[in-house]
Amino acid sequence: MTQFETIFDFFSRNLTGEIEQIGKRVPKNLYEPVIYSLNMGGKRIRPVLLLMAYKMFKSDLEKALPAACAIELFHNFTLLHDDIMDDAGLRRNLETVHVKYSNNAAILSGDAMSILSYEYITKYNSDNRKEIIDLYTLTALRICEGQQFDMDYETKNDVTVDEYINMIGLKTAILLAASLKLGAIIADAPEKDAELLYEMGYNLGLAFQLQDDLLDTFGEQDTFGKNIGGDIVSNKKTFLLINALKLANTHQLSELKKWLQEINFDRDEKIEHVKKIFIDLGIFEITRKKIDSFFQVAQNCWDQLNVDVVRKEGLLIVAKTLMDRQN
Amino acid sequence: MTQFETIFDFFSRNLTGEIEQIGKRVPKNLYEPVIYSLNMGGKRIRPVLLLMAYKMFKSDLEKALPAACAIELFHNFTLLHDDIMDDAGLRRNLETVHVKYSNNAAILSGDAMSILSYEYITKYNSDNRKEIIDLYTLTALRICEGQQFDMDYETKNDVTVDEYINMIGLKTAILLAASLKLGAIIADAPEKDAELLYEMGYNLGLAFQLQDDLLDTFGEQDTFGKNIGGDIVSNKKTFLLINALKLANTHQLSELKKWLQEINFDRDEKIEHVKKIFIDLGIFEITRKKIDSFFQVAQNCWDQLNVDVVRKEGLLIVAKTLMDRQN
Repeated sequence: MTQFETIFDFFSRNLTGEIEQIGKRVPKNLYEPVIYSLNMGGKRIRPVLLLMAYKMFKSDLEKALPAACAIELFHNFTLLHDDIMDDAGLRRNLETVHVKYSNNAAILSGDAMSILSYEYITKYNSDNRKEIIDLYTLTALRICEGQQFDMDYETKNDVTVDEYINMIGLKTAILLAASLKLGAIIADAPEKDAELLYEMGYNLGLAFQLQDDLLDTFGEQDTFGKNIGGDIVSNKKTFLLINALKLANTHQLSELKKWLQEINFDRDEKIEHVKKIFIDLGIFEITRKKIDSFFQVAQNCWDQLNVDVVRKEGLLIVAKTLMDRQN
Repeated sequence: MTQFETIFDFFSRNLTGEIEQIGKRVPKNLYEPVIYSLNMGGKRIRPVLLLMAYKMFKSDLEKALPAACAIELFHNFTLLHDDIMDDAGLRRNLETVHVKYSNNAAILSGDAMSILSYEYITKYNSDNRKEIIDLYTLTALRICEGQQFDMDYETKNDVTVDEYINMIGLKTAILLAASLKLGAIIADAPEKDAELLYEMGYNLGLAFQLQDDLLDTFGEQDTFGKNIGGDIVSNKKTFLLINALKLANTHQLSELKKWLQEINFDRDEKIEHVKKIFIDLGIFEITRKKIDSFFQVAQNCWDQLNVDVVRKEGLLIVAKTLMDRQN
């Protein structure tokens, strides 16, 4: 088993125990959606990264568990409320919480999850507790800000590349960053290493999100899992589209805008035409290059970690695996 | 000025400063509804009670401000999400947040408010910080549980008096209780006094909510502010209705049930008939008596406080004022 798999198993086992405890709380109608959401699965990337960072410095993984649970609870809370806001019907091929239960259940159970995550993150009573909780609260608030920017950008027509990178930084990357840093802080790691892990997580998160953008348009239908081209169909302002709008010549721009404004269109035809403009403009290569550059920064941070290579190599393997994924 | 007014002014001034600071954050669309919600006004009962409790033991009120702000933020966050869930259009004669902005804005800005409240409550770094934050988180979670019980009871036909009291205890009373206790904890008050203040707040909260139930049916239209009889029209399972269903004879029960099931009815006629059953059953007196008994427990707690009467009399005056209100 890889280190990721070992730690994933360790976390999953413990999370199952926590879910059982949560299941004993009342009222049932409040906690059932919480449990359903936590049981939807997923890669548990954030808590596993937190635990891996901890394990670089200390061995007693149990100590990092409350923070890992807090992060997983918080992440699932954001998914739950995001799914209401986006009116998304499915997640990981399962009905989303507001569809399975109701909007009100999803709102209130999400609120409870967010507070419950504080029950976990406030369990630390060591000297660094303030650093832990301040980082946690700051991150949580930034994620809300990122989600708001994302919603704002749906109707803003001149989103710049920088604005987009900042938005995915808040919405996605800082939670990976904070997960790694929290693991380091809880392990009493040197501040410099904790900072490097934050930077690594942040850049990894950016690379990860751009990879998502790329796969949505250029992924293989069979391996990607969801329908290719969804972003194109919904005019989502991804890194790809923002760059295309910036680089297009007059002719390409007018064709791109035509497709963006079209109300009645054939799905495949729209995807084919927009994708062709992307290809003509070299958007695939631009995005690939940007992903590589973020990944390179992440790797540089990893290189500088003052940790024996045996203890830190697992993290780089995971980072590379995340980048090689096809879905 | 009464002590309440002095402290209300002190809190309002400081809250205004905090609101200004929040207004500098971005994105604007996330924080504008937060500010709108905080500016809707209200009696600020919870933060003022917290500050009054603090002032019984210590003079430097500033120290209790972060907790008072946290409580006010949290309370407004719950109103914001409750208003979405109840689809309430007006609060304090102003448009509710989800009506003025959108459901999504109200969900996300509410989430941000809840997290922001943690920014305030985690400012304490004294020895009792853990007690402060644990009480805060426990209270926040219990309020969600109370809201869920309230929603559950809408469709449950056999809600008992005890279940109802427990529900309003969670939904309303514990926030008053926790406010008073937090003030005491932050002031390093003796544990016994902190507990007495919690008990006092809890019973005051129960009395306060039953008073609400009573005013909704038996209040004076002119002074009550909202339409008398709203609870009757909407079949709300208040203390009054639950007791009426329990005490009614066969004839009264069938008439009560007829009104509960009626789809097309004249508003005033329904209110008149249901109110008459309440009066025949002595529901007004039963409720009044229950309010008095809760208030008596609150006052007994106050009596036992090991605090000079000059320092504690302000709290009893406020408690009595809350009970004498006609709206």
